[in-house]
Amino acid sequence: MRTYVDCVPCFARQALDAVRMATDDPALQARVMRRVLAQCAEFSFELPPPVMGSQIHGIVREETGEPDPYLERKQAANQLGLEILAALRDRVDRADDPFGAAVRLAIAANVIDLGAKSGEELSEAVVRAELAGALDKELPGGAVDVLRGSTARAHSILYLADNAGEIAFDRLLIEHLPAGTVTVAVRGAPVINDATLEDADAVGLPDVARVITNGGAVPGTLLDECGELLRRCFAEADVVISKGQGNYETLSDEKRPNLFFLLRVKCPVLARDLECSIGQLIVRTGKGGTPDP
Amino acid sequence: MRTYVDCVPCFARQALDAVRMATDDPALQARVMRRVLAQCAEFSFELPPPVMGSQIHGIVREETGEPDPYLERKQAANQLGLEILAALRDRVDRADDPFGAAVRLAIAANVIDLGAKSGEELSEAVVRAELAGALDKELPGGAVDVLRGSTARAHSILYLADNAGEIAFDRLLIEHLPAGTVTVAVRGAPVINDATLEDADAVGLPDVARVITNGGAVPGTLLDECGELLRRCFAEADVVISKGQGNYETLSDEKRPNLFFLLRVKCPVLARDLECSIGQLIVRTGKGGTPDP
Repeated sequence: MRTYVDCVPCFARQALDAVRMATDDPALQARVMRRVLAQCAEFSFELPPPVMGSQIHGIVREETGEPDPYLERKQAANQLGLEILAALRDRVDRADDPFGAAVRLAIAANVIDLGAKSGEELSEAVVRAELAGALDKELPGGAVDVLRGSTARAHSILYLADNAGEIAFDRLLIEHLPAGTVTVAVRGAPVINDATLEDADAVGLPDVARVITNGGAVPGTLLDECGELLRRCFAEADVVISKGQGNYETLSDEKRPNLFFLLRVKCPVLARDLECSIGQLIVRTGKGGTPDP
Repeated sequence: MRTYVDCVPCFARQALDAVRMATDDPALQARVMRRVLAQCAEFSFELPPPVMGSQIHGIVREETGEPDPYLERKQAANQLGLEILAALRDRVDRADDPFGAAVRLAIAANVIDLGAKSGEELSEAVVRAELAGALDKELPGGAVDVLRGSTARAHSILYLADNAGEIAFDRLLIEHLPAGTVTVAVRGAPVINDATLEDADAVGLPDVARVITNGGAVPGTLLDECGELLRRCFAEADVVISKGQGNYETLSDEKRPNLFFLLRVKCPVLARDLECSIGQLIVRTGKGGTPDP
């Protein structure tokens, strides 16, 4: 997906969020913002927004020397995710359709995205409310059934994780996928609050899946910049599940079959692109469709 | 007042708002955003934010050839302002303190600011609700009494207007100032939704005051860039009433006595600077104080 002019204020807000978490020095903050603005001015709108995201957070890291400004937020989100998951697990098990319930929660947990929202707007209360309401939210029934069918037949599933905290509910969904089939890919290095190996460990993902990194520090999946292992998994897996906005923005034009996008719509640009409304839970198949087995 | 890094996302949002109103051409929109970003990257944070605002809207006008992107919004705001004023006039006349009521409404009408808020956020309903609630809002009693006393003694008052629509309620307040003393200054050319001569005419301001322009196209009052007439009035008036955020940001360091800032606080940066909360109605005296007559 290309970048729109509408993304520009969001880039600036994201840079401001990050630099404030990384340093209290106003002069350094101003220098970072200047560099980000100059970089944005040169950015090609043909590229997907996570490319600019990657550049922004690279500038913040380089100028401030802070390798992971979102570390505390990620740790708190993992704890919160596990706590809410423990409280909801019973409702999932007793649901008429536990798979559908797990899908809803995994998508709703995608609300924990500090790229799309400022930390001040994304309070613990917002996360709790979103997840509490998710089981009653509408999801296009057909899409869930296609996902159910494709994953049930799959021998190998690549699951592209998005954010820390959210990853607790990715674990829940993975528990409802065929055992032993799933490889989860997290980011290769910290960027925004995207999940890395530490976050996968924090929610016990290695107990239910093989965990790898995509080899990059992009808040999305730019295949050309990912490691060899991720690229091979992406090419060879029977099914790919792509979580969240950044992965959608970077993979929406991919033609491979059985590629599923699961995300909560958080911004007007994406709502327009997906022809849906903000807050909606989305299951979409990629451009390669879901050919009959 | 200087510019803070917090202002940067707002600059980008303001540019996006303006360029969208000025043109539907995505390539032209992108070119404008690029130029704005490059200009922001070079901007001195020591200068007040309206200087950047002026540059942003200059770029939009120059690139799109649209001299006044906010024209329709301004015309609609004037009509809305007059309509609400007609409905509230009776309550002002019957108030225990009609002067205090007029002050409250003139400040609350400062909500009509498309520099601080995006047009989508500032609906007609928001404006109606703000004004309907204003008469019951708290204002530091002492400050109103000082304003009352200073203006009652004044032979000449310079009133620096801010936005279209709001100006209908500036008219109301001016009707409660000593007759024949008031000179109102509007912007010399269109910038954001700031009031110009056309807006002053639309609400009948020439019936109750002398109307001049400040000679500039800055969304504030940069004295060095204002016309000779405005500078003389500012230097010689017994009292200056400065409306709104842009005028505050550009005049907050001025030392002349009997300078009053009347504004509704709309952004976190200003709330911090004024040590108050967003949405609060403010009457502040400038650094020159209000010496005894």
